[in-house]
Amino acid sequence: MDSRRPEWAPKDAGNEYASRVVGGIKSTTGSVSQAYRAHHDRRYDPNALIEGVKAANRSLLSKAITLIESNSNKHFELGQELLKKLLPLSGKSIRIGITGVPGAGKSTFIEKFGLWLIDKGFRVAVLAIDPSSSISKGSILGDKTRMEGLSRNPNSFIRPSPSSGILGGVARKTRESIILCEAAGYDVIIIETVGVGQSETTVRSMVDFFLVMQIAGAGDELQGIKKGIIELADMIVVNKADGDNILRAEQAKQEFNNALHYLRHTTSSWQTKALTCSAITGDGIDTIWQEIEAYRLAAMQSGAFQDRRMRQNLEWFEALISESVLNQFYNNRYIKEALPQLKQRVQQGALPVAMAVAELLGRDSQPE
Amino acid sequence: MDSRRPEWAPKDAGNEYASRVVGGIKSTTGSVSQAYRAHHDRRYDPNALIEGVKAANRSLLSKAITLIESNSNKHFELGQELLKKLLPLSGKSIRIGITGVPGAGKSTFIEKFGLWLIDKGFRVAVLAIDPSSSISKGSILGDKTRMEGLSRNPNSFIRPSPSSGILGGVARKTRESIILCEAAGYDVIIIETVGVGQSETTVRSMVDFFLVMQIAGAGDELQGIKKGIIELADMIVVNKADGDNILRAEQAKQEFNNALHYLRHTTSSWQTKALTCSAITGDGIDTIWQEIEAYRLAAMQSGAFQDRRMRQNLEWFEALISESVLNQFYNNRYIKEALPQLKQRVQQGALPVAMAVAELLGRDSQPE
Repeated sequence: MDSRRPEWAPKDAGNEYASRVVGGIKSTTGSVSQAYRAHHDRRYDPNALIEGVKAANRSLLSKAITLIESNSNKHFELGQELLKKLLPLSGKSIRIGITGVPGAGKSTFIEKFGLWLIDKGFRVAVLAIDPSSSISKGSILGDKTRMEGLSRNPNSFIRPSPSSGILGGVARKTRESIILCEAAGYDVIIIETVGVGQSETTVRSMVDFFLVMQIAGAGDELQGIKKGIIELADMIVVNKADGDNILRAEQAKQEFNNALHYLRHTTSSWQTKALTCSAITGDGIDTIWQEIEAYRLAAMQSGAFQDRRMRQNLEWFEALISESVLNQFYNNRYIKEALPQLKQRVQQGALPVAMAVAELLGRDSQPE
Repeated sequence: MDSRRPEWAPKDAGNEYASRVVGGIKSTTGSVSQAYRAHHDRRYDPNALIEGVKAANRSLLSKAITLIESNSNKHFELGQELLKKLLPLSGKSIRIGITGVPGAGKSTFIEKFGLWLIDKGFRVAVLAIDPSSSISKGSILGDKTRMEGLSRNPNSFIRPSPSSGILGGVARKTRESIILCEAAGYDVIIIETVGVGQSETTVRSMVDFFLVMQIAGAGDELQGIKKGIIELADMIVVNKADGDNILRAEQAKQEFNNALHYLRHTTSSWQTKALTCSAITGDGIDTIWQEIEAYRLAAMQSGAFQDRRMRQNLEWFEALISESVLNQFYNNRYIKEALPQLKQRVQQGALPVAMAVAELLGRDSQPE
């Protein structure tokens, strides 16, 4: 396995944004029997896992996700085979991304919202993307204590961020976990993230609907707008609209609605709105779900819903190709040798850029 | 020469956004004598061109740019050698990008602004980026008739967009033309573009200062904001603030300043402002230049000016590497053969994305 910074990594970031890319596996589909594999890793019996996921067995779903999250090459192949078999069963949920600064009350909201949905007859899965967990060694979902009611409910499934915590890798694993959860029959998939680095953009690229959670009186209500996150939103929810805070929350909502007037819509034919809610009392949660349902209906009718999913799949495919190809290129030892000096000369203005590229590609074509 | 859609091309665009990439030229610097080259193309005598550019001979500067714009491999090498020699003389100008919808009065403004700058003792070069010129077969600068006074002035240099009109190629050529104009001693380089496709982003990536020209009463003053162009701006100028229109222009300016409050700054430590001007009467042009000077001073002191230039160079280098490497990859005949079917299967949800990529890269590593 090789790692390389993906294009969305901040320029000054370190290796925490390196993406793991599995390179150069020959297509051996079918050439290695499943019995042979199972023999070599009895923990993962493909047929048992497939049947377990189909039957919505939470412990086997968990095991299947663990297989997907493994970084070993053998598990990669096994996991991909599993995915291939389960793909036809996926795609029927609504995928909702939720972000917000720490303290906005995301966990409390998801607990309340999830239980409300289950009460209406839905089955709810919660996945997390948390690039900071590799540093803090703790997932934002912690030990599920913050979603106690939801985690105990048989119609929910909660899974913290993969512990490796490298955003590119986490993103792949989360996308694949969505597929498994859908195959297990979950109707609403919630992807939670915190506002760290590029994690919002990553979540936006894998969900149908993106909800940005805010609170009033946190100093600068419009902070999110300046950071460009609001432009990704299909809905802004001002949480903690309860008790003394109701008026301030309403004011913040109004401010967001004014600001949204100036911004592009995230989804064509859908006007992003700001709403208020209280994750404590549950006020506003019904309206939020009505709006999400209205969104799904409008986006399905206009075709924007299906278009986005198809585009997300193709973009993911193309991004992974680019990443893998460039990874191979930059790991070529001639390139590794030549690049630093060329970069320096380009930066100093001693070498025209196009000439530097021609020199680099000429070198690449030499035999290794 | 091979062509491929660069990453910034709209998804539904055709070949008009294909970038030309010169691939696989071995580093032959010094191995072919200049005398030999000159013998083979008497139109381009490198020494005469270098001396001519240095002496600010406009006709030889024009010829040097024509060499740069040539798509032939021989001219590419010759042009890059020329650039290499002139690079040390470049970099001392301020590079100003100007965009605006057709009818905003860009040409009239540049004529007035350019002559005003020359009157203050500056030398002014105007280059254009116009991806639409390949379709309309006419540059936005036309036959220079719209900048008659400026084009006749010995201290100006006006160069329309390269006629090939492919944005990626135009961008490379314009970047290189900037270097030549700077080596010829022009103090202010203006890059003009119209709001077509991604041309604003392209211009933003090669200038120090980006000016977005608007007019009042064109229906929707905030159109530019919705299209995300305002976020690239270091200054918004509401033009045609003359006669009956002064009040409306002032109102539009106010609206822009309100909206700017909600947006991220383009340059750190610089607050983007809206101003008014009249390209007819010249009112406001002195203030615009004062602001640009204030910007340069602030950005130089904070280091943002130098940082941006260095970053632009490196980003250009990296973008050109990626483009060339991916171009080679996608032109591999095994990839060409395998990709459409894999894409279809990924899109239909029949094949996991990571498995498709592994299959593709496995195939790529087979001998051709």
